[in-house]
Amino acid sequence: MIQETVLIANRGEIALRIIRACRRLGLRAICVHSEADRGAPWLALADSALCIGPAPAQASYLHIPAILAAAKATGADLIHPGYGFLSERAEFAAAVAEAGLRLIGPRADVMRKMGDKVEAKKALLRAGVPCVPGPDSVLPDDPQAVANAAEAIGYPVILKAAGGGGGRGMRVVRQRTDLDEAFLLTRQEASRFFGNPDIYMEKFLERPRHVEIQIIADSHGNALWLGDRDCSMQRRHQKLIEEAPAPGIDRALIAAVGERCAAACREIGYVGAGTFEFLYEDGQFYFIEMNTRIQVEHPVTELVTGLDIVALQIDVARGASLALLQSEVGLAGHAIECRINAEDPENFAPHPGQITALHLPGGPGIRVDSHVVPGYTIPPHYDSMIAKVIAHGATRAEALSRLRTALQELCVEGIKTNIPLHRQMLAEHGFVGGGVSIHHLEHWLKAREAQDV
Amino acid sequence: MIQETVLIANRGEIALRIIRACRRLGLRAICVHSEADRGAPWLALADSALCIGPAPAQASYLHIPAILAAAKATGADLIHPGYGFLSERAEFAAAVAEAGLRLIGPRADVMRKMGDKVEAKKALLRAGVPCVPGPDSVLPDDPQAVANAAEAIGYPVILKAAGGGGGRGMRVVRQRTDLDEAFLLTRQEASRFFGNPDIYMEKFLERPRHVEIQIIADSHGNALWLGDRDCSMQRRHQKLIEEAPAPGIDRALIAAVGERCAAACREIGYVGAGTFEFLYEDGQFYFIEMNTRIQVEHPVTELVTGLDIVALQIDVARGASLALLQSEVGLAGHAIECRINAEDPENFAPHPGQITALHLPGGPGIRVDSHVVPGYTIPPHYDSMIAKVIAHGATRAEALSRLRTALQELCVEGIKTNIPLHRQMLAEHGFVGGGVSIHHLEHWLKAREAQDV
Repeated sequence: MIQETVLIANRGEIALRIIRACRRLGLRAICVHSEADRGAPWLALADSALCIGPAPAQASYLHIPAILAAAKATGADLIHPGYGFLSERAEFAAAVAEAGLRLIGPRADVMRKMGDKVEAKKALLRAGVPCVPGPDSVLPDDPQAVANAAEAIGYPVILKAAGGGGGRGMRVVRQRTDLDEAFLLTRQEASRFFGNPDIYMEKFLERPRHVEIQIIADSHGNALWLGDRDCSMQRRHQKLIEEAPAPGIDRALIAAVGERCAAACREIGYVGAGTFEFLYEDGQFYFIEMNTRIQVEHPVTELVTGLDIVALQIDVARGASLALLQSEVGLAGHAIECRINAEDPENFAPHPGQITALHLPGGPGIRVDSHVVPGYTIPPHYDSMIAKVIAHGATRAEALSRLRTALQELCVEGIKTNIPLHRQMLAEHGFVGGGVSIHHLEHWLKAREAQDV
Repeated sequence: MIQETVLIANRGEIALRIIRACRRLGLRAICVHSEADRGAPWLALADSALCIGPAPAQASYLHIPAILAAAKATGADLIHPGYGFLSERAEFAAAVAEAGLRLIGPRADVMRKMGDKVEAKKALLRAGVPCVPGPDSVLPDDPQAVANAAEAIGYPVILKAAGGGGGRGMRVVRQRTDLDEAFLLTRQEASRFFGNPDIYMEKFLERPRHVEIQIIADSHGNALWLGDRDCSMQRRHQKLIEEAPAPGIDRALIAAVGERCAAACREIGYVGAGTFEFLYEDGQFYFIEMNTRIQVEHPVTELVTGLDIVALQIDVARGASLALLQSEVGLAGHAIECRINAEDPENFAPHPGQITALHLPGGPGIRVDSHVVPGYTIPPHYDSMIAKVIAHGATRAEALSRLRTALQELCVEGIKTNIPLHRQMLAEHGFVGGGVSIHHLEHWLKAREAQDV
């Protein structure tokens, strides 16, 4: 059998994570990298590495022709886009297919469909996945029709750009008198930021939790859901702590939602790993969007299922059938992940620079996914995440206790990090109790700030 | 509640492992260290560190008065001896108790009893634990009586020093004509090396496996067995690869032996973690000795049980009851550990020196227990082990595949290590098949050497 080659179109910890999966599967792993990442530690672990352009992502990690040229030059068979960068760009998926290569991810048309919030919602509703109440099409450019739609679902409502994401292009409207101006502004922003003025409307939930379902699907019509994750500990829509399973939610309800997600994947011909993101409030799940890629927080699911999701992604992209039945997907214990960022814990400003000393934690139940080493200089151009520290335990209390110990042990010198914030969050009453809303962390940060003054 | 303090009378990875358990339990961790270990990386993770003497272990890690003085000076409540050094010295256990401190381990009298092979065998036979056939007392200094004993159990037999261990003070006798001289020599060696001329005799097993049972017992009469380990991959009685559970052995048989071990602990009033070591051949278990301490290979058991054995050790030493029932001890999946040593892979000579570059593996199912960091200089005075790389998977095949990937990724520069040997062993036909005898590795090494020449 010819040894296949995977080109990794990403950097940092996820590049290292994909290298590990390739080695596990006996595949060659080739990394492309920017000039700023020359000599970066994960590149030494790849079978080879190719510089494709200068630091700005547009000129390297987002530069589709350069990536495809590197794939050709190195004889790559598959391309793994990781997360971020090109991972959810349908035009990249199309270009990869056109070049005769296989993307480790869904087909371009499926990606396009699921990347459009309105289209995704329609597809999900058909599969019986519950969605946030609201019209299932974009709003007409007619103030009275918009007002009627808002009356129909009841205030507060939220306006969202169909092409938006990451918390941008959204606006909450609490009463009729604010609606017209809000609609106009959101439409303008949507045009400017996402090149698409389409807006849709949803019921606004006051204190929801963020709960998501991990799925994996092959090209033979098999799709499995691999449990749930709670990612409610967010600041400005950036997840900081994630856990699996979501605490305090009826498991039968989650299983029912998970089954619907798997069914939706089968119906739309989805292939690869993916995540259905939901808001959860008062015993109800509401679909918000699908991520058609691996997620940062996948290790918590790996720890409770014992599965290697990145290896599964590659397997199904190579045409393999999932060797697992849904009944064989077990969820054992509890796992919690902290995202360690190089940033000022006071004002959250990125804090690139050289890591002068580093000690990573270990021991029972601790996993660390990190691409940094002592002496490594974090470039200023990219995401500030330097490590994920993940703890697994038989119970949530045990996972939490192990994670606290690991965070005490973790030592990064030379740069500022959010380690002190994580230590505080892991001791914070609400989070320790479990089941906080997506607003909890910001409320707590504001309260803390008010106390300090 | 007053925060208790644990003094760690050990060094290297097990000192770090104990620090982690102390943090987990909210206890202060104090390290004592030799002059050679001044500035060693694990010391920075302890709450404080105290130099107790020069490099030779006799003057520091084995120097009981210095350790007790350090315990007094730092207000320690408990002492953890780790493995090796003072961990199985009954006189240390007695001195700790006399100083009004608690040893994390069994009482001196229990340690003395279980450390004596003949006494241990008697105790185990009473509890119904199977032993290697042979007289249950030391041999009389009478050639005819010794010959009669050998005839009764049948040749080959093995003569062992009652106070011996680690493969020293043993001699196989295959026929009557060799017996008298062998007895004389073994007796002389026993006197010289162990200060005790007592010799006992056992049936010699030709191709046994080394299988051991982990136990944990509290001071309230509760004792559990925490599964089994296969440690047959040995060279000169030094374990190199360990795994849990032992492949290909009837689980009901292992459970029966495990229950007997737990019963023996209850009967002898054993408190702490311990290991019953067995030879296994042709469907039979034969007790050989008990280790009254934590073992190097404990992580494989932690990975399949999800338990923190070092934390349990400390808990029971503090008087806690085991919060777990035997029926709640589950064994999930398979775990395999490689001991990475700083040694020449050709001739096994220790190879101390400075680690100029280091990359430790990670990712799903991988645990690394290591005290070394880039730039660290391995002192020549101590054990050459620098890391344990442990993989967990749903099946033995998955654990093996993950471990192979981890060993490919592992990179240690500046010193020679046995990493190349481990990579070969993990691909070796016999080991991959599972269930090899304790002679397998040496036979394979000899065959490989013969091929090379």
